Amino acid sequence: MARYKIIVEYDGTPYFGFQRQKNQMTVQQAIEEAISSWRPDPITIHVSGRTDTGVHALGQVIHVDIENVSPHKLLEATNHFLKIKDHPISFLSVEEVPESFHARFSSQRRHYVYKIINRRSPLTLDKYRAWHVHKPLDEKLMNQAAKLLIGHHDFSSFRSADCQAQSPFKTLEQLEVTRRGESLEIYTCSKSFLHHQVRNMAGALKFVGEGRWTLEDLQRALDAKDRTKGPFMAPACGLYFIKVDY
Amino acid sequence: MARYKIIVEYDGTPYFGFQRQKNQMTVQQAIEEAISSWRPDPITIHVSGRTDTGVHALGQVIHVDIENVSPHKLLEATNHFLKIKDHPISFLSVEEVPESFHARFSSQRRHYVYKIINRRSPLTLDKYRAWHVHKPLDEKLMNQAAKLLIGHHDFSSFRSADCQAQSPFKTLEQLEVTRRGESLEIYTCSKSFLHHQVRNMAGALKFVGEGRWTLEDLQRALDAKDRTKGPFMAPACGLYFIKVDY
Repeated sequence: MARYKIIVEYDGTPYFGFQRQKNQMTVQQAIEEAISSWRPDPITIHVSGRTDTGVHALGQVIHVDIENVSPHKLLEATNHFLKIKDHPISFLSVEEVPESFHARFSSQRRHYVYKIINRRSPLTLDKYRAWHVHKPLDEKLMNQAAKLLIGHHDFSSFRSADCQAQSPFKTLEQLEVTRRGESLEIYTCSKSFLHHQVRNMAGALKFVGEGRWTLEDLQRALDAKDRTKGPFMAPACGLYFIKVDY
Repeated sequence: MARYKIIVEYDGTPYFGFQRQKNQMTVQQAIEEAISSWRPDPITIHVSGRTDTGVHALGQVIHVDIENVSPHKLLEATNHFLKIKDHPISFLSVEEVPESFHARFSSQRRHYVYKIINRRSPLTLDKYRAWHVHKPLDEKLMNQAAKLLIGHHDFSSFRSADCQAQSPFKTLEQLEVTRRGESLEIYTCSKSFLHHQVRNMAGALKFVGEGRWTLEDLQRALDAKDRTKGPFMAPACGLYFIKVDY
């Protein structure tokens, strides 16, 4: 039995998130079925960070234990069966790792990008791939707001009611907004995030960027440690899980 | 009656090209029907450069003659009706122009980008938005090849059998390949192009980049002035009509 670390890219649009569900197609089910198409034994994959319905990944990491197969075969055969089922999921790389490696528990840092298209006209090619924000956003103000969130905080105001983390404290390492024309990217990294934390932070930065919240409002929301005082959550389609450091 | 110049973005995937067809949905039909949804009088739009089935546009230009309407209303109302019909077509800007302006005949220069994703793994988010090329491409060789095509040439070897241009001679102003990681962009501009010329040039540069053609092979293909000696045509999904200069 060998353990394999696999980097995975997917378009999250057609899936009910990563994790297996009853009666709904998920990324996990699509991958496990693709592997089972050419392997007789049942397979369970383990993921670095579960993603919600509609969230994309450019560099999700999973691991799987499997017998007697080369990394090359695992990549090519699985991609083949994903493709013939028309799943927009792709193994980018496969490498053998020690048994001590765990996609989730060995993660040192997770990186996300949240994409916004800031214009009046409806989206075409970026539909389902970015958040469409009509009002002009001030990215300088958004970067000032971002600085308030960096560091060690109780992020209760930015946390889903369903979040299973034991503590609401997280240490946010980076949060940065860059603009290229009408396209804004919010980049963030941290050892880990609370459930919905990135989308709630994106929602807060959007509130500040469009002038609905001042920096003081954001500070008050953070200090309140209360989800009902937090921002509207940004939609899933703008979020990309881009990388994991081990 | 006033004339309006309109910049249009669209995802070409669901359309049988720009120009109206019998029994097939096209970009032209979608736009004309959207305008007719809020205007009683029949409308005909005129386009700078027709695009083929599956080809995208970030800055296509059309013009239309229409009575008693503000540019703002023309943009907002049309986008509204495009959106409720779920058409991935969007008016980016509308401005009134003199009657002497013609979207097609006043065009001074047309700009295209052809996108390639150069990797082994199948595409996910870039599916229908780029050409997936498996073999490693040498972008330096591709740029050397591009230089052979720049300038005034008989482009018969790069021309569709259906091309309606009177002359096969065109003056290619720019043709340049840039790589960022696995993503290659071929940028080109010219006063005008023959039918399928950009996709055939992209196909030729890909042949050179993967080592299937030498620079001499490309020169021979150009000199042959014969489509049957030309390259395979690159697929439509990688092509973007990005801008028109007037």
